[in-house]
Amino acid sequence: MQTLEVSLLDRSYPIHIGANQLASPATYEKFIAGKTVAIVTNETVAPLYLPKVRAAIGSLGKAIVEIILPDGEEHKTAASLDKIYTSMLAAKCDRKTTIVALGGGVIGDVAGYAAATYQRGIPFIQVPTTLLSQVDSSVGGKTAINHPLGKNMIGAFYQPQAVISDIDTLKTLPPREYASGLAEVVKHALIFDSDHFAELESSADALNARDTEVLTRVIAHSCKIKADVVKQDERETKDIRALLNLGHTFGHAIETEMGYGAWFHGEAVAAGCCMAAQFSEAMSGGAVIDVERVEKLFSALNLPVSPPKVAAKNLLAHMQRDKKNENGTVTLILLKRIGEAYVDRNVAEPKLLGFLERTVT
Amino acid sequence: MQTLEVSLLDRSYPIHIGANQLASPATYEKFIAGKTVAIVTNETVAPLYLPKVRAAIGSLGKAIVEIILPDGEEHKTAASLDKIYTSMLAAKCDRKTTIVALGGGVIGDVAGYAAATYQRGIPFIQVPTTLLSQVDSSVGGKTAINHPLGKNMIGAFYQPQAVISDIDTLKTLPPREYASGLAEVVKHALIFDSDHFAELESSADALNARDTEVLTRVIAHSCKIKADVVKQDERETKDIRALLNLGHTFGHAIETEMGYGAWFHGEAVAAGCCMAAQFSEAMSGGAVIDVERVEKLFSALNLPVSPPKVAAKNLLAHMQRDKKNENGTVTLILLKRIGEAYVDRNVAEPKLLGFLERTVT
Repeated sequence: MQTLEVSLLDRSYPIHIGANQLASPATYEKFIAGKTVAIVTNETVAPLYLPKVRAAIGSLGKAIVEIILPDGEEHKTAASLDKIYTSMLAAKCDRKTTIVALGGGVIGDVAGYAAATYQRGIPFIQVPTTLLSQVDSSVGGKTAINHPLGKNMIGAFYQPQAVISDIDTLKTLPPREYASGLAEVVKHALIFDSDHFAELESSADALNARDTEVLTRVIAHSCKIKADVVKQDERETKDIRALLNLGHTFGHAIETEMGYGAWFHGEAVAAGCCMAAQFSEAMSGGAVIDVERVEKLFSALNLPVSPPKVAAKNLLAHMQRDKKNENGTVTLILLKRIGEAYVDRNVAEPKLLGFLERTVT
Repeated sequence: MQTLEVSLLDRSYPIHIGANQLASPATYEKFIAGKTVAIVTNETVAPLYLPKVRAAIGSLGKAIVEIILPDGEEHKTAASLDKIYTSMLAAKCDRKTTIVALGGGVIGDVAGYAAATYQRGIPFIQVPTTLLSQVDSSVGGKTAINHPLGKNMIGAFYQPQAVISDIDTLKTLPPREYASGLAEVVKHALIFDSDHFAELESSADALNARDTEVLTRVIAHSCKIKADVVKQDERETKDIRALLNLGHTFGHAIETEMGYGAWFHGEAVAAGCCMAAQFSEAMSGGAVIDVERVEKLFSALNLPVSPPKVAAKNLLAHMQRDKKNENGTVTLILLKRIGEAYVDRNVAEPKLLGFLERTVT
């Protein structure tokens, strides 16, 4: 097992990464102070892991409230949130109750937001069960629900007591979902760490085989990269946390154009990172960004390296509505080289449209 | 005008107390960074003050979104909160938008909670227009809405950019509402500051006459007492912030038993403080708590000093459900003397019931 610390003054917490954690009482013991634990999970994850988690926490003598939400991004809503509140109030959960978020990114976001706001904030533990949530959404304290007028519009920055990433849960992930998580790992390396990028290149086969040792090392490294960013910019008020959006403006445009769910998030991010690399090269007037290496790694990890064939002007329209934009111009995260990214807040739209026309149609 | 600072590291902010503030652009100028301001108020306050606030902020070149909620505690709900979210999203308010909470405690709580959670937190300014909110709810960063299963059950600790307490707004308050605010002023003095208690005794006539100079001084002093507590215990994890609940366990029991709205909150707190003083004397085995002085001051300020005639066992049952209780025993804030309070986490219930039987029936 590897442990790393997210350093945020009085809000610091550890991330434990390794096999055989879920079912062990010791995993939870020192992070639960009160007598009651509310486990929030979904209908897909519950049959796989809820009995183990319930037994482990129950053996610590804690009373347990189970809250099982329907699975899927479409349930990241005020209605799911109220189901958590109502279940906890009916069970007389007080301010010392701990919430355990058992599941992927949606569960982490909704349960974390419930913890941020139940009786003005109670402790919670993230137990992410997907690769995407282990390397991305569980690190950094972003919690949220969607609103009919926009994704993630209601939320809080709220840090957990601990993140428990059990590698064993990755063994049962469907192939596309697993690969989708790897896209964020590659993205972190592309932005901040060329050595880690090289390690990923040499570990592609082991990653595809879901090797426990390699996964533990790679996830820990990827979390470390993100934790360092969060430490410098907890509330996303500076540019550095914005860099984490590499590939996301292109990627969100693809997801929106294709209809949510057609492309997995990580698939869209992979294609988006390749597009960002290509556009960076085009904008730099010939400086050397090794686009081919970027595409080769995503490809080796079973991820797409180019966008679907759609209308360029549609993608541009989606990009113009991105919430990172200020003053009406498109903001993009671009690459100087593998391992170094920058924010371009004033992208020339004719050049962007020309690029999209060459790339997607 | 008097200014005091609430010292909370990077969350510190000033409270400005005095006349002639609402209509002045300078009041708001340095606390609004973005281009858009959402003013949240209610149907009672809007006709009185919204035009002035709109004109002042508008003259700074800000775009203004107005959100007018129905008046009353029964509207401190998820539905009101969603009205704020939806109005702001429809108006494309971004993370740099500032919310101005213009009204009493309910508006401050709901609008403050909206600010805490809109796009994971945006700046807000409290403009309390009642005495109760100027001396109590606007200081300390508690925001919340009610849930069908409990009051203030959903919320956040979230500090404003500034509190603007315009004394002029107190001139139009109905007498019972004004007196109700004074109850919290007396309560702060009872818990922490015997000199201030003596000052209130000698200022009772001026307070009843709503004298601007005396009100400015008294409100500033009362806010200072509360701000010092909040500084030591921002998130209510220690006993000191619990002391602020003096009179509230008895008071909430009265409010609940009589039906919300029959007694004003401050009226119930005044009677509750007198009951706490009497019970403190009874429990101390004869030590000197000057109950008569306490009753005389509340009385001079047109506040009740004894509970209504109800069944003692009903009050006890309400007190047993108080959310401060732990491990099934009633917690009460009691007095050592005027100016010094303590937490009793293990109140002997037969003694409490005996006291209630002597007092309320």
